[in-house]
Amino acid sequence: MNFLEEKIMNDGQVRPGAILKVDNFLNHQLDIALLDQIGETFYQHFKDRGINKIITIEASGIAIACLAGMHFHVPVVFAKKSMSKNIDGGVYQTTVHSYTHGTDSNVIMSRKFLGPEDNVLIVDDFLANGKATQGLLEICEQAGAKVSGIAIAIEKGFQDGGKYLRDQGYDVCSIAIVETMTDDGGITFREHSL
Amino acid sequence: MNFLEEKIMNDGQVRPGAILKVDNFLNHQLDIALLDQIGETFYQHFKDRGINKIITIEASGIAIACLAGMHFHVPVVFAKKSMSKNIDGGVYQTTVHSYTHGTDSNVIMSRKFLGPEDNVLIVDDFLANGKATQGLLEICEQAGAKVSGIAIAIEKGFQDGGKYLRDQGYDVCSIAIVETMTDDGGITFREHSL
Repeated sequence: MNFLEEKIMNDGQVRPGAILKVDNFLNHQLDIALLDQIGETFYQHFKDRGINKIITIEASGIAIACLAGMHFHVPVVFAKKSMSKNIDGGVYQTTVHSYTHGTDSNVIMSRKFLGPEDNVLIVDDFLANGKATQGLLEICEQAGAKVSGIAIAIEKGFQDGGKYLRDQGYDVCSIAIVETMTDDGGITFREHSL
Repeated sequence: MNFLEEKIMNDGQVRPGAILKVDNFLNHQLDIALLDQIGETFYQHFKDRGINKIITIEASGIAIACLAGMHFHVPVVFAKKSMSKNIDGGVYQTTVHSYTHGTDSNVIMSRKFLGPEDNVLIVDDFLANGKATQGLLEICEQAGAKVSGIAIAIEKGFQDGGKYLRDQGYDVCSIAIVETMTDDGGITFREHSL
């Protein structure tokens, strides 16, 4: 098992309904040393792709994206879930359905921060059905930006987001890929190289 | 001028109505090297206070808090603005009015991640009327946690949040304190030591 799979085994909780709780280190309380190791792992995988920008989606993607940004030495842009008074009119825009929150979110990114000159790494904490990632891909398409990779901390391999993205030809680097979760708390991971 | 005041002078934009746009480096696109320098500055100011946890509020506080967490080697916990399906029932809870978004947000933090044993640094990107900070202080009070400092990137010194917090006895370390902003784009900073 790699470091993140071990962390999930030791500190994550599997709940009935295929819910994996990792809020004590990944998406509510943040284990910064772990996020740093995740960022370093993404860097080792994607360092030769000429990436000049990392994008993610608020809120829980921001932490991992920032630590990844430390290793890549590139700016991070996070897509926002609501229209703020302080955002200029020129935005890329899409809609993302959140399974966790049960809501549709209007997701926007200022046009100033993404364009055809950009070579992007998409970063997020989770990949399940892939709706958030597809929203970010749509924003990149609107911007004419190149997407050189998708970097995910935890993929739910039994949902179809990862397969869909790989079938489209994207290089998806998920550090932990959950193969099965059982209602009594069991969990297994897919064997894969990083 | 310190590094952040210089960055604001060079890359920020002053808009009519006392709006300071720093979305190209602080709260939409993130200049990670700058955030790292902000985190290091907070660390130099607060390193002898025995801080064991950093707390902030989603979304734009997360980035600075993470980079600060790198320097303090402590976990970061961010308060969330909505009730997610994946949060256990036991939460601290308060309401924060956002001037920027014109909305009241229900702000919650899991009880698991803050308690009487914690010595907290509150971190945020902006301090204006102080509503977000007061929400975090209220959560710390509910938790019985000690607050040893408040670390802010940009304070709007002409609004009353900073004065109120300092009058209450809190050590507020704001790297840039905006003294005046004019509708034609002028800006001045308060002289202060970090």
